[in-house]
Amino acid sequence: MADPLITLTTDFGEDSPYVAALKGVILSINPAARLVDLSHQIPPQDVRHAAHFLAAAVPYFPPATLHVVVVDPGVGSERALLFIEVGQQRLLAPDNGCWTLLAAGQTPTVRRLEEPRWWRQPVSATFHGRDILAPVAGHLSLGLDPRTLGPMTTEWIRLDRRQPIAGPDSLTGAVEFVDHFGNLITNLPGDVLITQDERPLRITVSGQEVARRVRTYAEAKPGTLVALVSSTGMLEVAVVQGNAADQLQATVGTEVVLTFLGGAASGRGPK
Amino acid sequence: MADPLITLTTDFGEDSPYVAALKGVILSINPAARLVDLSHQIPPQDVRHAAHFLAAAVPYFPPATLHVVVVDPGVGSERALLFIEVGQQRLLAPDNGCWTLLAAGQTPTVRRLEEPRWWRQPVSATFHGRDILAPVAGHLSLGLDPRTLGPMTTEWIRLDRRQPIAGPDSLTGAVEFVDHFGNLITNLPGDVLITQDERPLRITVSGQEVARRVRTYAEAKPGTLVALVSSTGMLEVAVVQGNAADQLQATVGTEVVLTFLGGAASGRGPK
Amino acid sequence: MADPLITLTTDFGEDSPYVAALKGVILSINPAARLVDLSHQIPPQDVRHAAHFLAAAVPYFPPATLHVVVVDPGVGSERALLFIEVGQQRLLAPDNGCWTLLAAGQTPTVRRLEEPRWWRQPVSATFHGRDILAPVAGHLSLGLDPRTLGPMTTEWIRLDRRQPIAGPDSLTGAVEFVDHFGNLITNLPGDVLITQDERPLRITVSGQEVARRVRTYAEAKPGTLVALVSSTGMLEVAVVQGNAADQLQATVGTEVVLTFLGGAASGRGPK
Repeated sequence: MADPLITLTTDFGEDSPYVAALKGVILSINPAARLVDLSHQIPPQDVRHAAHFLAAAVPYFPPATLHVVVVDPGVGSERALLFIEVGQQRLLAPDNGCWTLLAAGQTPTVRRLEEPRWWRQPVSATFHGRDILAPVAGHLSLGLDPRTLGPMTTEWIRLDRRQPIAGPDSLTGAVEFVDHFGNLITNLPGDVLITQDERPLRITVSGQEVARRVRTYAEAKPGTLVALVSSTGMLEVAVVQGNAADQLQATVGTEVVLTFLGGAASGRGPK
Repeated sequence: MADPLITLTTDFGEDSPYVAALKGVILSINPAARLVDLSHQIPPQDVRHAAHFLAAAVPYFPPATLHVVVVDPGVGSERALLFIEVGQQRLLAPDNGCWTLLAAGQTPTVRRLEEPRWWRQPVSATFHGRDILAPVAGHLSLGLDPRTLGPMTTEWIRLDRRQPIAGPDSLTGAVEFVDHFGNLITNLPGDVLITQDERPLRITVSGQEVARRVRTYAEAKPGTLVALVSSTGMLEVAVVQGNAADQLQATVGTEVVLTFLGGAASGRGPK
Repeated sequence: MADPLITLTTDFGEDSPYVAALKGVILSINPAARLVDLSHQIPPQDVRHAAHFLAAAVPYFPPATLHVVVVDPGVGSERALLFIEVGQQRLLAPDNGCWTLLAAGQTPTVRRLEEPRWWRQPVSATFHGRDILAPVAGHLSLGLDPRTLGPMTTEWIRLDRRQPIAGPDSLTGAVEFVDHFGNLITNLPGDVLITQDERPLRITVSGQEVARRVRTYAEAKPGTLVALVSSTGMLEVAVVQGNAADQLQATVGTEVVLTFLGGAASGRGPK
């Protein structure tokens, strides 16, 4: 059997000794743990970004992978730290909603970490990733029974996906995530592009019209503003071999409007 | 025997969930695979940069290492995906030439990936790294016979190194690669510096003369513009403890001229 | 027993083929070595930054971990390369002081690497990380006796922590390290904040007064300039959910002054 997998997702940056400290603490407890960096470039304290990141990353991992998430603007406050089991994945994360988008539609089992026996002592006021989450991850990877971590809870902070608003002939959504290429992933369902293929449809991002609907980037010339289905199934706006976020000055929250031209739109909306 | 090694080279950025998705898909198929990040900071869609990067990185790995390369501006088009065996290394990459500099002078064995049995279903139009290359890598690391991936081919896109142009008393080349320190790696052979040691030689980068020829950075004072043999054997222009690219406003393609002063130059040229 | 751990800390950048070359060389000698990236974003040639980084990272690792450090402005000069054993950790690093802060107060065993049998040949003039440190790391991870590497030495470059200066009613220190969040880690002992809790204390950073003393970031509103004990035990100045380095235009070396108001300060100073 392969050694246990532990992934790391933080907002610590690639230049930070804090990432190294996490790794050292885990490996000191379980030298056989296999660490996998997901990202250390979550924007500082951006819990919503972390939530989208994790929803797009965690489900691909093998069952029982343990994911340690340290995006923790509330460190040192009364916010809880959680152990979550959902969809065959296991997570350790602050109770700030960062894991809840990936759990959408599922029933997670959640425990509060309350047993200091598994923590590093003394626990600092500012680095619970190193002092609580990392050592707990090390012990879990050695086979520790999660029931010893603390009590189950049904209360936790939830982040929701913003839902698009359906008008008589339109659907008004927003940019949810901007990727490294400047592609704009929206909260509008990608299948609108497919099922409406035969009908006129106008897509605008902060008032600017998207020129073309394509299946893939390579269908249009470099520089063209296109709409397509993202690799996560959502409506995506991109500039072929360019950067849509820069070109449209768009960011998370920028409005994206679909207008259905010349046809009844009753009952239209996201599934 | 050590668990199989799979390296990853992409233009996805450190902040991208796409890297995590690749890792998750590979590990879901082969939880024992050992992943090694080469870089996720290839400039977006820059196939030529990827080619230079891979030529400077891949040959150092142990035989049978599998290298997954996802720099893929043509994703979703008719471009093929390839499995390449060359010089004891194995690669999975789009057919855009990104692997051909490292194979220079060797005879690769190349197959087109055409057997959907080894792919993730459904295959998206925009993320073949996750849906084709990663699962194929996972299966290969489990011992899958490459002959089941698809037919052999002798047709593929080739990128060539730009060759310097020999004049009567000069050699005109260009910057091929700018490294993280701003050092300029050229397409001029480094041994020109050594074999011409006794003869006057002038080196200019976009018209600015390089002050000194050195064996290593530490030979000149901080701030000096120097020429030396790069760690890959080419002529390199650097600023000691500084950034030559910034100082000279040089980039890939910037002209670099060697002029041999006061001597016959017949037959001079790159080997 | 778990396969040997080798960590990597460099100033090569995430975009650099030089990191990949190090990894390849190590794995070619010991395919079972487990590589752990600490950081490749040490600022170029910044030995002092590397020293602080390593002091905050290395001590967390399990005994006998091997740490390879390539921040090496003196490459190719007469500076030695060292193998260091200190506090149950093992390091390979250039003799430029980068490892000496982490060894403060301990007695290291140090050898000079002088046995070319364990090196990659030919040794380049500009990349001893690849040609000397990486192959030596590979051999050590296979169990090579360190005594075969070269002679012991008691001479090496030392970097010291800058010590704060005690005045009659004040302590004048400086920013020692700026982290990814822009938090300013100083050379002033963090316990001053705790032991002086009952007494008035003024903290200024380049003349600007720090508004509040807190135990953790979450105690003050976003945007507040606070002083607290860092996760490494030092006095830290931060902006809650903001960037203190940007806001105060502070950097390494910026003066930080503690003034004790209305009380005797005799004997006050760092421990």
